[in-house]
Amino acid sequence: MSSPHAPMPGAEGLAEPLRSRWSPSVFDADHVLADSDIETLLSAAQWAPSAGNSQPWGYVVVPRGTEAHTAFIAHLSRGNAGWVPRASLILVAGTQVGPAPDGRGPKSADYARHDLGQASAHITLQARSMGLHAHQFAGFDHASAAAELGVPDHVALMTGIAIGVHLEPGDPRLEEVSADDRAREERPRERKPLAEIAFASRWSQAWSASDRS
Amino acid sequence: MSSPHAPMPGAEGLAEPLRSRWSPSVFDADHVLADSDIETLLSAAQWAPSAGNSQPWGYVVVPRGTEAHTAFIAHLSRGNAGWVPRASLILVAGTQVGPAPDGRGPKSADYARHDLGQASAHITLQARSMGLHAHQFAGFDHASAAAELGVPDHVALMTGIAIGVHLEPGDPRLEEVSADDRAREERPRERKPLAEIAFASRWSQAWSASDRS
Repeated sequence: MSSPHAPMPGAEGLAEPLRSRWSPSVFDADHVLADSDIETLLSAAQWAPSAGNSQPWGYVVVPRGTEAHTAFIAHLSRGNAGWVPRASLILVAGTQVGPAPDGRGPKSADYARHDLGQASAHITLQARSMGLHAHQFAGFDHASAAAELGVPDHVALMTGIAIGVHLEPGDPRLEEVSADDRAREERPRERKPLAEIAFASRWSQAWSASDRS
Repeated sequence: MSSPHAPMPGAEGLAEPLRSRWSPSVFDADHVLADSDIETLLSAAQWAPSAGNSQPWGYVVVPRGTEAHTAFIAHLSRGNAGWVPRASLILVAGTQVGPAPDGRGPKSADYARHDLGQASAHITLQARSMGLHAHQFAGFDHASAAAELGVPDHVALMTGIAIGVHLEPGDPRLEEVSADDRAREERPRERKPLAEIAFASRWSQAWSASDRS
């Protein structure tokens, strides 16, 4: 699972699949994902927690080589049009932000978005456990994609999740990948220090181990 | 990891820590979490993915037995006031939904909420990998808690994450727990069928294994 990208210093103490998770941009365009594996990935989202067990999320299953794939990738942003189509699978993720035609839910669009993020994290980590990598992206024409996929007005598309096998350095098929997409993977992965996201007693008062207020 | 609660039928195929994750309501009120473990949990959030690597989330670290704990639990909803205080740790989770005093970010409050859900999922799953359980909750007086914790106006508190050790059936300390909180754990865990969250080609057209549009 070792990689120049994960785990990063500070992340070595995490358990798998979190430890080795990262978001590659160079996928094996020959790899095909079995439907049974797609079903397992979707089950990971199904069993994610949500506010009041509302489960507001939904995913359109878009495997490479399908008509839906050809239709969806036409709406990718310029920056995503090169690398996303190589992935074995795209899961297009939406969540219920308004009342359904039957008038039901959601209690809160804010929590619907929060809980979609949670369900997509479960998919991403389940993928890593299966030897796959997932790279979430928001860069696509959401209105056109929603029309293309028949997404109703009470559902907001938020992300696509590109899932597949990472093309390892040295693979001759890297020649198929643009320099920009290869370069994207060389960007150093950086995070805010814990002191900027973990607070003791009061917001923005940095927490550190051994603090006890 | 076997439990009457997880894995549920349909979730047996998931990898750990997803497979055995659930949200208990009866925590061991004697268990104390080491700061080194708290730091590992926070690192799981730190390395979660986010839109443009914006990392909009923050967590106030509230261990049982601290002044911050006494202050926070006073704002719990009636339904949460019994069980949440028994957990070893509460992480109070917020995300940046408006521009900071320096005018910076977020690009999108919607993605800030989505990405907080993702970071909290990483904490929850890291906890399970450490033999702990996490139960996220939104039932507390958000305005009062924000004032208590000094949360600035550009940050929205969304959840608390109660983290600790589950008190197993048969433990004599279950006598300390109210019948309501014990009963809460007996509720069957249910999810929508995959056909209601996984779609083939078009939203609300049920996907099933072997579908290929």
